Amino acid sequence: MITEIANITIDPARAAAFEAAVAEAAPHFRTAEGCHAMRLERVVEDPALYRLVVSWASVEAHMVTFRNSPGFARWRELAGPFFVSPPVVEHWDVAANHF
Amino acid sequence: MITEIANITIDPARAAAFEAAVAEAAPHFRTAEGCHAMRLERVVEDPALYRLVVSWASVEAHMVTFRNSPGFARWRELAGPFFVSPPVVEHWDVAANHF
Repeated sequence: MITEIANITIDPARAAAFEAAVAEAAPHFRTAEGCHAMRLERVVEDPALYRLVVSWASVEAHMVTFRNSPGFARWRELAGPFFVSPPVVEHWDVAANHF
Repeated sequence: MITEIANITIDPARAAAFEAAVAEAAPHFRTAEGCHAMRLERVVEDPALYRLVVSWASVEAHMVTFRNSPGFARWRELAGPFFVSPPVVEHWDVAANHF
């Protein structure tokens, strides 16, 4: 299991509409093959910065299977208009769960 | 509850020693006031990049109470020698837990 982190910058004046668009897109992640969890986080120090956190079975489940699915296209249709720059996407693995 | 994210860059050749230093420092977080969870993550695309993820009762619990405690000094003694640049620290709040 790996975690996709998509760092997303929006116009904070449009935050409510962006969050609604993410909520509308959530079912497309929920039904995606290999997708186990999804949440949206917002940075305390800068309200323009969000992070979409998605748990996938593997990097391939995200970057190959999902990216080539209609669900990804719908996600980008809904959320893409809010992006002020291309999202910066990384995949993280747990090195140690200390407590 | 907020999440501290400390983005840490190290020399990947020293990864095992860095992870051991973080494990040695973990009890200082576990006993810190307002600290609820701690894990270490590593970016898949770049083995030099780690992320320390710590759950705190509030930003103040991290930035005031912990930063002024002996536990923080000990953390920096243990992990600081591995940092190739100052960690970039942000605090994140959950906007929505979709599933």
